[in-house]
Amino acid sequence: MKIGLDMMGGDFAPLEAVKSLQLYLSGTTSPANLFLFGDEAQLQPLLEEYNIPLEAVKIVHAPEVIGMHEHPTKALKEKQQSSIAIGFGYLGKGVIDAFISAGNTGAMLVGAVYSLKAMEGVLRPTISTIIPKENGGTGLLLDVGLNADCKPENLNQFALLGSLYAKHILGVDNPRVALINIGEEEGKGNLLAQATYPLLKENTAINFVGNIEGRDVLLDKADVMVCEGFTGNIILKLAESIYEITDRKGIHHEYFDRFNFENYGGTPVLGVNKPVIIGHGISQSRAFSNMITLAEKMIDSNLLQIMQESFQS
Amino acid sequence: MKIGLDMMGGDFAPLEAVKSLQLYLSGTTSPANLFLFGDEAQLQPLLEEYNIPLEAVKIVHAPEVIGMHEHPTKALKEKQQSSIAIGFGYLGKGVIDAFISAGNTGAMLVGAVYSLKAMEGVLRPTISTIIPKENGGTGLLLDVGLNADCKPENLNQFALLGSLYAKHILGVDNPRVALINIGEEEGKGNLLAQATYPLLKENTAINFVGNIEGRDVLLDKADVMVCEGFTGNIILKLAESIYEITDRKGIHHEYFDRFNFENYGGTPVLGVNKPVIIGHGISQSRAFSNMITLAEKMIDSNLLQIMQESFQS
Repeated sequence: MKIGLDMMGGDFAPLEAVKSLQLYLSGTTSPANLFLFGDEAQLQPLLEEYNIPLEAVKIVHAPEVIGMHEHPTKALKEKQQSSIAIGFGYLGKGVIDAFISAGNTGAMLVGAVYSLKAMEGVLRPTISTIIPKENGGTGLLLDVGLNADCKPENLNQFALLGSLYAKHILGVDNPRVALINIGEEEGKGNLLAQATYPLLKENTAINFVGNIEGRDVLLDKADVMVCEGFTGNIILKLAESIYEITDRKGIHHEYFDRFNFENYGGTPVLGVNKPVIIGHGISQSRAFSNMITLAEKMIDSNLLQIMQESFQS
Repeated sequence: MKIGLDMMGGDFAPLEAVKSLQLYLSGTTSPANLFLFGDEAQLQPLLEEYNIPLEAVKIVHAPEVIGMHEHPTKALKEKQQSSIAIGFGYLGKGVIDAFISAGNTGAMLVGAVYSLKAMEGVLRPTISTIIPKENGGTGLLLDVGLNADCKPENLNQFALLGSLYAKHILGVDNPRVALINIGEEEGKGNLLAQATYPLLKENTAINFVGNIEGRDVLLDKADVMVCEGFTGNIILKLAESIYEITDRKGIHHEYFDRFNFENYGGTPVLGVNKPVIIGHGISQSRAFSNMITLAEKMIDSNLLQIMQESFQS
């Protein structure tokens, strides 16, 4: 298993990415082959300082870096020697089996969608987030911002992608899928939600349980919660802010600690042909290490082949 | 000043509505003339029990009640002797200056929009909510569910209605108006947000400060936050659930207590020709009493005339 890691992505690169290797390697007896994309001159001394055995990793020199605020398409096109561009090149050619970065989210999305392409049958790839539930469980919310405007069929596909992810990666048996809406009954909601409901209801590949409202998002009503990326992104960022506010106010509680999205590592781009995981810009070593573990799980579980088959049938 | 109160609306009617009279009357030296719409046989003994002086109130007998789950349009049409239908009749004829109910929200909205009509120039009336900010302040969020699908011009009008409400009722000087979006820069967002931004920017009647993201909703970035009713309703109900969850988990903190929407009374329907205030179904005496005070404030401040003039100019 060969996993590629963008060492130059995120606010604390490359230090936190290097520290994550130490954390990852200390927690596994059969580590993946790690391909580290980044500036060799910066990485080499850090790897030594943190005692990363050089036989465990392979540095792929990438002299350029795409900044966090650069225009994604432009940067990817012009900086072909950047860690993200080279990483996607390796992934496309099959030299690595998965690619991880906490760098420029837009560039990662553009790379995933345009260099890898969507799976056959998938109209629009999507990104998701884990939502901590009041009862200790977790739910998967998607889309959280890749698709600000959606058609009903997009949401129906997100439901299937999310179900397969919940089943094979999160270990939820027969995941309950709900449509995020502003009323419980069929027929409620905006035009998109009204048109999406019957598609979900008739979709035999998922376990649709109906509409859920904003008040249910944090409750254990569904395992997979589907909406367009505008609403999903607002929910995600509002939830993140709750953690930050409680932290600043000195309100400490196990429940709010679970809103620290550092715990969850990163979000995979679902519906593209290879595992691509995007981390938060503020990712530190634990988040990076969790992303490596998630990549392993996505490869081990054959998630992508399962998804491909689901969309071809 | 004559204020009408639906005594039969809400989960705890008519008891909590009666108790609210006691609370309201004890806190004012020049009370409004209160018109109480409801079943006289139920109200009379309760008013005696709670020592409400009969000269302070006027019971308007309404033998029918619209239940919380009845179909709004159908119920309003068929139950012309209901407290809501009679209340709107009194308001329409000018016998009362404002009407308050914690009953069937849909019936209240239908009554407000169809029996009173929208103000001249207002395309779609709207409802809002108060959002408690981290720094102790409050923001106004609208629309929160009356308009699930919106056009850019609707959002532009909500911005003005919200600004006038924030200025004249909440006492915010030159209120900052923001567009809820999934990115900070102009050009970000879904098609609606992209098309709304330039309208807000060019609107000289408001103080537009740009886009805010989900993470900013609880921060002091804007006094008036505008979005369509789908997103707004999700935000409102998610915020309400945070209070309920913290309460259930025994997490008590002044900040979360402010998410108890009972504190804020009710929400006015903005953009219709008379003051109409809708309470939450779970409203108790404090919420009812706050709604009476809000109605007084809306009348005293001449808010509706100011709004009418703003939309006619």
